[in-house]
Amino acid sequence: MVLYELAGADPELLFSPHCWKVRMALAHKGLTAETRPWRFTEREAIAFSGQGYVPVLVDGTEIVSDSWRISQYLDAQYPDTPPLFGGEAAIPLAAFINAWADRTLLPLIARIILLDIHDCLAPVDQAYFRASREKRFGQNLEAVVADRPAHLSALRSALSPLRDALRKAPYLSGVTSAYADYCVFGMFMWARCTSPVELLEADDPIFHWRDRLLDAFGGLARSARHAAIDGARP
Amino acid sequence: MVLYELAGADPELLFSPHCWKVRMALAHKGLTAETRPWRFTEREAIAFSGQGYVPVLVDGTEIVSDSWRISQYLDAQYPDTPPLFGGEAAIPLAAFINAWADRTLLPLIARIILLDIHDCLAPVDQAYFRASREKRFGQNLEAVVADRPAHLSALRSALSPLRDALRKAPYLSGVTSAYADYCVFGMFMWARCTSPVELLEADDPIFHWRDRLLDAFGGLARSARHAAIDGARP
Repeated sequence: MVLYELAGADPELLFSPHCWKVRMALAHKGLTAETRPWRFTEREAIAFSGQGYVPVLVDGTEIVSDSWRISQYLDAQYPDTPPLFGGEAAIPLAAFINAWADRTLLPLIARIILLDIHDCLAPVDQAYFRASREKRFGQNLEAVVADRPAHLSALRSALSPLRDALRKAPYLSGVTSAYADYCVFGMFMWARCTSPVELLEADDPIFHWRDRLLDAFGGLARSARHAAIDGARP
Repeated sequence: MVLYELAGADPELLFSPHCWKVRMALAHKGLTAETRPWRFTEREAIAFSGQGYVPVLVDGTEIVSDSWRISQYLDAQYPDTPPLFGGEAAIPLAAFINAWADRTLLPLIARIILLDIHDCLAPVDQAYFRASREKRFGQNLEAVVADRPAHLSALRSALSPLRDALRKAPYLSGVTSAYADYCVFGMFMWARCTSPVELLEADDPIFHWRDRLLDAFGGLARSARHAAIDGARP
């Protein structure tokens, strides 16, 4: 399999939250894919997929884009590997959690790390990123991230339901992790790979959940390349 | 079975979001319980349950409080009735959605309907409600609800993940409703029963999902008593 993943100026800096959902899903299932680093401005390189965003998974003659559709594809195509869901009833609930990560967490984290992401990108991508994100937020990047304490506070408040759930079980999916966990964890990897800002306090149950997932699959996520801005990240 | 439920001055005005979760859960399973109306200030009436909040379900010699624990009890105790979850994997994900309803939606809806709730209560409860809620919000009730357009806008934005999920399936739980739906629907019943404010726009997929649940189980929710403030509620 080949997985097209968003990369920074450093081709080993793979930071997309949606690509991280797929990386963790592949590891969960014991599957491997060769990474093909891709930049925002390389639309023609994935034009074969019929759309313009990563992740794109190529599995023999199958071409699957969109992280959610890839998760469904992997469970259908590889039924003898550990399931990402665990029954039909869990799939729509996991879809909601994926939407919560994308619609609620992603914009809040963006307001903290957007300028750090910019600084990780190849120069040609920086111009695209600045223009598209400044249009989306209606402000220049520096203004979007200006009030970091307020944005951190808003994020930590929005994380309340995750915190509650993790007081009942070690993972969002229960006693072991599954795709719903990876949907949310992808957001934290996005920040970890690009920014020196610590999103969580050390006494937060979410901090410890994130630690468990950083260590999962032989430390796949913990050992991933990140922008070594402060050199002190654990 | 007997279910202790929060009531307004009118004993048939049953408006607690958590009690509505249980009402819908009982209907889903084809079970019935006799309602025992209860007011905030009647702590002694449910002291037998070992705590001070409703819902409290009494089933023979079993006493179960807390809507989430009641949902687990019902599936365990009545395994031959339709399941509220649908597999072990769905339970922790539904627990997250319950926490999202309680932690994210409930405070946002409170900022819209708090004064309307107050006006539905028996006089003795009004004093308790005003004091406890003004302490919680750090403002008087009139100030909490003052900027209704802003609160409605914040609520509709926070509902984005639900909207996304309901574009994929008719219910949060998929093709049929289940407990995760009732957790969220309870919040809308709380508002419907106490307030004339319409929380949703008519072209919102959530509006139509709510309509389907209002009609479920023979129109249990649609026919429920509500504060007929404007007389024009559908």
